[in-house]
Amino acid sequence: MHLALYLEAGTHQGGWRHPDSAASGGVDWRLYKQIARRAEAACLDMLFVADKLSIDDNYGGHFANTVKYRPVVRPEPLTLLAALAAVTDRIGVGGTVSSSYSAPYTAARMLANIDHISGGRAAWNVVTSVSDGEARNFGRAQHYAHGERYQRANEFIEVVQKLWDSWGDGALIKDVQNGLYADPSRFHYVDHHGANFDVRGPINIPRPPQGQPVLIQAGVSEAFIDLAAQNAEVVFVVQATLERAQDFYRLIKTKAKAFGRDPASIKVLPGIVPVVGRDERDAQEKDALLKALIRPEAGLSFMSASMNHDMARYPQDAPMPDISAQITGSKGRFEYVIKQAVERGLSVGQVGKGYAESLSFFSPVGSPAQVAEQLLSWYRAQACDGFVILPPYLEEADDLFLSQVVPCLQAAGVFRTAYPGSTLRDTLGLARPASRYD
Amino acid sequence: MHLALYLEAGTHQGGWRHPDSAASGGVDWRLYKQIARRAEAACLDMLFVADKLSIDDNYGGHFANTVKYRPVVRPEPLTLLAALAAVTDRIGVGGTVSSSYSAPYTAARMLANIDHISGGRAAWNVVTSVSDGEARNFGRAQHYAHGERYQRANEFIEVVQKLWDSWGDGALIKDVQNGLYADPSRFHYVDHHGANFDVRGPINIPRPPQGQPVLIQAGVSEAFIDLAAQNAEVVFVVQATLERAQDFYRLIKTKAKAFGRDPASIKVLPGIVPVVGRDERDAQEKDALLKALIRPEAGLSFMSASMNHDMARYPQDAPMPDISAQITGSKGRFEYVIKQAVERGLSVGQVGKGYAESLSFFSPVGSPAQVAEQLLSWYRAQACDGFVILPPYLEEADDLFLSQVVPCLQAAGVFRTAYPGSTLRDTLGLARPASRYD
Repeated sequence: MHLALYLEAGTHQGGWRHPDSAASGGVDWRLYKQIARRAEAACLDMLFVADKLSIDDNYGGHFANTVKYRPVVRPEPLTLLAALAAVTDRIGVGGTVSSSYSAPYTAARMLANIDHISGGRAAWNVVTSVSDGEARNFGRAQHYAHGERYQRANEFIEVVQKLWDSWGDGALIKDVQNGLYADPSRFHYVDHHGANFDVRGPINIPRPPQGQPVLIQAGVSEAFIDLAAQNAEVVFVVQATLERAQDFYRLIKTKAKAFGRDPASIKVLPGIVPVVGRDERDAQEKDALLKALIRPEAGLSFMSASMNHDMARYPQDAPMPDISAQITGSKGRFEYVIKQAVERGLSVGQVGKGYAESLSFFSPVGSPAQVAEQLLSWYRAQACDGFVILPPYLEEADDLFLSQVVPCLQAAGVFRTAYPGSTLRDTLGLARPASRYD
Repeated sequence: MHLALYLEAGTHQGGWRHPDSAASGGVDWRLYKQIARRAEAACLDMLFVADKLSIDDNYGGHFANTVKYRPVVRPEPLTLLAALAAVTDRIGVGGTVSSSYSAPYTAARMLANIDHISGGRAAWNVVTSVSDGEARNFGRAQHYAHGERYQRANEFIEVVQKLWDSWGDGALIKDVQNGLYADPSRFHYVDHHGANFDVRGPINIPRPPQGQPVLIQAGVSEAFIDLAAQNAEVVFVVQATLERAQDFYRLIKTKAKAFGRDPASIKVLPGIVPVVGRDERDAQEKDALLKALIRPEAGLSFMSASMNHDMARYPQDAPMPDISAQITGSKGRFEYVIKQAVERGLSVGQVGKGYAESLSFFSPVGSPAQVAEQLLSWYRAQACDGFVILPPYLEEADDLFLSQVVPCLQAAGVFRTAYPGSTLRDTLGLARPASRYD
């Protein structure tokens, strides 16, 4: 089983108000470092840093309606990964990069550098970004259309991977006697000229220890599955139920096989929001408290940004309208959320509050043994290869998931008790890609 | 006196071939970390990471003519600073950002994050980039013209600083009782619409501990001085002689005063390439060896990139032609280099070899006490407020500058023996800027 840990507060929208939640609310480097080391002691595969390129401001057309109700701090992922890499030894560090608003040459250099600093533990999660609010921080009035941004993402990945390959393994000679630094035949102009990017190369940093940092992709739509089946190495997915998770797992593995890939070379990790208590009753009380602490606005604001559609247009006590056609942000994910809500006859406020509980991620509640049992049941039912853990809040105190659920999984024989090698590829059981120029 | 340490091999083009030079030649995180901690033990103001956005390829029109002859590894600065911040406690971390090929929203977030991770020790060195080779990695056939890129740099700095101010000090309320996360009145749309950038804001990370990371600018031309006198806090400059350094120092301080600034709020730090030996003879031998290890191609390739003009057009044994008018890269710096070379009747090869000795930086040679004496003489003659140290090579072994020159400066009473506070602004004696929105 593979386990990644989301290093972020703010998935469960009641989390920041929980009495055990870490106090700062801002960028808390000491806390991140502490949690990273705790996760490494538990042998987790990797830390994961999500991202968003704005303070959401489409709910009610102004950021005021968001900053009032929920955490909006976003420590920039690549600088955070570099810092985390410097204070850990074995755990992977994965972070989010927007293919819509990043330059591939810079992204390739930064990720290569993190892979060097960490000795081969870097991963990147390529996203297309979702909202007009993000676009407006990068010189555009509106975000790219859905199809356009997927095409751009594909090309972005291609260029970045070409750049990593453009400095060949073993290029450095360092012949001090004759004054020959490197072997020119091991470098390659990329000369990429595509619909979205023109990049000459070569990159100016040696090929990463992993050859290429591990490629994570997140999504759930059919267009996404086609893309991910071709090149993703880790898939981060939202699945609220076992059945849907099984269908997705079967589909993406089958498609990967159709593309000539070993299905084992693509790891499917649904996100989960575990609510763990000392015992079942403690967990139920914690869950009830966390839910009671949610304001509907927190969820509606989150949905507005992710769908790129303003939910403040609809009164909170009105029945949820079918707005599937208006979603221009994360389509695959929200079409399902909206459909479910309409079918169940929920009000807009109820939808907001419900979404804010776990952002539609599976949320197992129970004692450490009970939560472990639920994870095992998904894992054994071929619904996943592991999970991305999204804690309801970050805490300074002992974290029951790491200290008690993980040992249950280890005792069950499905989770490691030591790292198998030094790189993230070793941990995930993924091969080091050869350079396309070799 | 203020001292920054350049964390890079490759200034002195003979350095990488010296027997004491660190062996890797690539990205060597363990070495960077070791040097950073050594520099912090010596109480240096900051570490400094330079940058370039390509492997130089204008010398002879191909990268082959560069990678053969000199180090071309460029660990990306911002990820490196973040990692360095994570393993140090007091020393500043400054790095280079290109205003031509970076998005201001992303740069602002990254630098703010580094300032948070370091507890207020971040600095940024804004450069405009110089060569067509860099442009071609970012979708342009040619680099921006000289005037255009300075205008862009000005606007870039303005937008980034506005973004840092757009999340007000004290914006986070975290009222868990009433579920109020932040105070909307402390956030501000930037709504910047300029010739080069359209950025809405606000930034999605709290205002940096320093308010704004320290602004470094590097240059020497008159256009540069006008710009730097207005807003630079640290000026990194190339000065080969005391007299020129004095003239520059007097001019920039006078201009800063004319702009209504306290002249003490702008620190002028010429770069130096110190060749330190155990005694004078040892230093002279080291200097001679380092010079003997230079291949002229290393210097000519470096000059070609920095001037954005191909020096391979001229035979190495021909007299140096006056090509001042053809320089489209670093004008201010190279007009002087070329003028000197033409006046002295040097050959093209001699110019390349000479330039490669120290890239025109002042290069004091001697025992620790002798080198310290030379620095003191510049400092006392009002030629500078300190120095940026560019070691001829990075070494694993004891570094004579840090271990022996710095103690001489401390004994002379001009350099600190302990850090005065926790931020880089404290170390440099610079005030924390107020937000423009307060």
